[in-house]
Amino acid sequence: MTSRALVSALFNIELPIIQAGMVWVSGGKLAAAASEAGALGIIGAGSMQPDLLREHIKKANSLTKKPLAVNIPLLYSKVQEQIDIALAEGIRIFFTSAGSPKTFTKQLKDLGCTVVHVTSSPELAIKCEAAGVDAIVAEGFEAGGHNGRDEITTMVLVPQVVDAVKIPVIAAGGIGDGRGIAAAFALGAQGVQIGSRFAATQESSAHQNFKQAIVNAGPGATMLSMKKAVPVRLLKNKFYEDMTRLEEQGASKEALNELLGKGRARLGMLDGDIDEGELEIGQIAGLIRDVPSVAMLVERLKKEFNQAMSFIPKTL
Amino acid sequence: MTSRALVSALFNIELPIIQAGMVWVSGGKLAAAASEAGALGIIGAGSMQPDLLREHIKKANSLTKKPLAVNIPLLYSKVQEQIDIALAEGIRIFFTSAGSPKTFTKQLKDLGCTVVHVTSSPELAIKCEAAGVDAIVAEGFEAGGHNGRDEITTMVLVPQVVDAVKIPVIAAGGIGDGRGIAAAFALGAQGVQIGSRFAATQESSAHQNFKQAIVNAGPGATMLSMKKAVPVRLLKNKFYEDMTRLEEQGASKEALNELLGKGRARLGMLDGDIDEGELEIGQIAGLIRDVPSVAMLVERLKKEFNQAMSFIPKTL
Repeated sequence: MTSRALVSALFNIELPIIQAGMVWVSGGKLAAAASEAGALGIIGAGSMQPDLLREHIKKANSLTKKPLAVNIPLLYSKVQEQIDIALAEGIRIFFTSAGSPKTFTKQLKDLGCTVVHVTSSPELAIKCEAAGVDAIVAEGFEAGGHNGRDEITTMVLVPQVVDAVKIPVIAAGGIGDGRGIAAAFALGAQGVQIGSRFAATQESSAHQNFKQAIVNAGPGATMLSMKKAVPVRLLKNKFYEDMTRLEEQGASKEALNELLGKGRARLGMLDGDIDEGELEIGQIAGLIRDVPSVAMLVERLKKEFNQAMSFIPKTL
Repeated sequence: MTSRALVSALFNIELPIIQAGMVWVSGGKLAAAASEAGALGIIGAGSMQPDLLREHIKKANSLTKKPLAVNIPLLYSKVQEQIDIALAEGIRIFFTSAGSPKTFTKQLKDLGCTVVHVTSSPELAIKCEAAGVDAIVAEGFEAGGHNGRDEITTMVLVPQVVDAVKIPVIAAGGIGDGRGIAAAFALGAQGVQIGSRFAATQESSAHQNFKQAIVNAGPGATMLSMKKAVPVRLLKNKFYEDMTRLEEQGASKEALNELLGKGRARLGMLDGDIDEGELEIGQIAGLIRDVPSVAMLVERLKKEFNQAMSFIPKTL
């Protein structure tokens, strides 16, 4: 284990904090606010048709001159179109996920971009490094949304990814305050990616009902679900109960995907139907108690981090 | 959040490190070695008939004059007998688990003992504090052996338990090196309880085959299993596959318990049948690469902690 530079230098940002790309939640407004506050703002392209993505990037660019990134899940059909639009709008930092790091890394690196891939295992982290990415997001079991099948938690995953690769590692999953940031650095990470905590901010495009549901969530309010189809961490609401019952009754992957496919994520997260909609959020929702502005949140994270560090014994 | 004293003072030990009580693994030899090294050694009474427990305490007392503790899972029938024997042999530190903190805390406190209860949720932590325990072990989803139903990870659980109670919090689950210890302190814990890493030491009573299986385990080698009966984290071996298949086929809780009840834990962990036995171990097994002596391990943990702390930025 050797010390590595914080990812702030890699992205040319002030703080080693990345606001995660999240479907229906992280549009241009949130990303610009995060970047303005000194973090790296990411526009989540996963829920956006190419034209909408262009609109969000334009909006973000109008709100900040600081670096911005786009997160592109590689499982959708219009990935190349999304990449071309992002490039045309000046994006030079790409976070890719849910697919092979081999597919787009070389293309983006040849154009001078910075590329980060999201992993849930040390084995995939090694493949990412071999594919030439600049950094890795190591995302644990507690993270919201889509998740790995091995159920490796952040605490267990991060040190093993740090040991497995030489490039910088960004810890994700279960980080909601400055204590979590300090813990991630202790585990050997060079940066943190924070999702749920940014979902419950003023600038997030999550529906007010969804933000309130995050604030109301207790420690056991989420569960990794739909393991037969594709594992995803959800708030336990009526939709979750329906889905779980179907799965327990032995429904096929196709039947589950059909229920899921009916715009349930949009219905819940953007349109605010917190009963019938799919609400993707991390387990750390239990720690979230308010809906601050992004600027307030980032200031608080710094303060909490400094306080946490002042409490840790310097040596054993 | 305010700073609280490390648990070293509470137990009158040198380091804020507790060697977890583990069935079939933490006998008198391991506990004495851990206490001699400056940690708190715990004899795991869960797999011991009262007479055997007496023997292990006597052995530990013959090997060290430093404080020792006993872990007593409250789900067995001979709990009172175990407690009486431990008291008679001079034990004054009790870790209780798998039951209500109300049942034995007052009795033990009235006798001047120190009592710690193991929890997997902030809600139970509050009940423990109300019952009068001296400290709480907050044990996350990644921990080996029996586990909570809410699947809350260490990263998410510890800060919420710290916020919920005023008494010291000992983090457990996923801690296998000095980075994990530093992370636990960053999250607000005042001590750490380490199981799996101590299971793979020279002094542990785990069978050599089981120790080797821990060393061989990769990052995804364990899974939280048997959720219908009582959730337990296991190494994925033939027994695990058999059990999981039965559960998927809709076997009753009774049928599962019958298979489990046939001495499978002893068979695997003590007798070394790594195919047919039940191998309880934490997810952090993926990080474990050797079988050192306890003294070597504790020295290494200190070194790793100090190195981890030297890498973390002091402020953001």
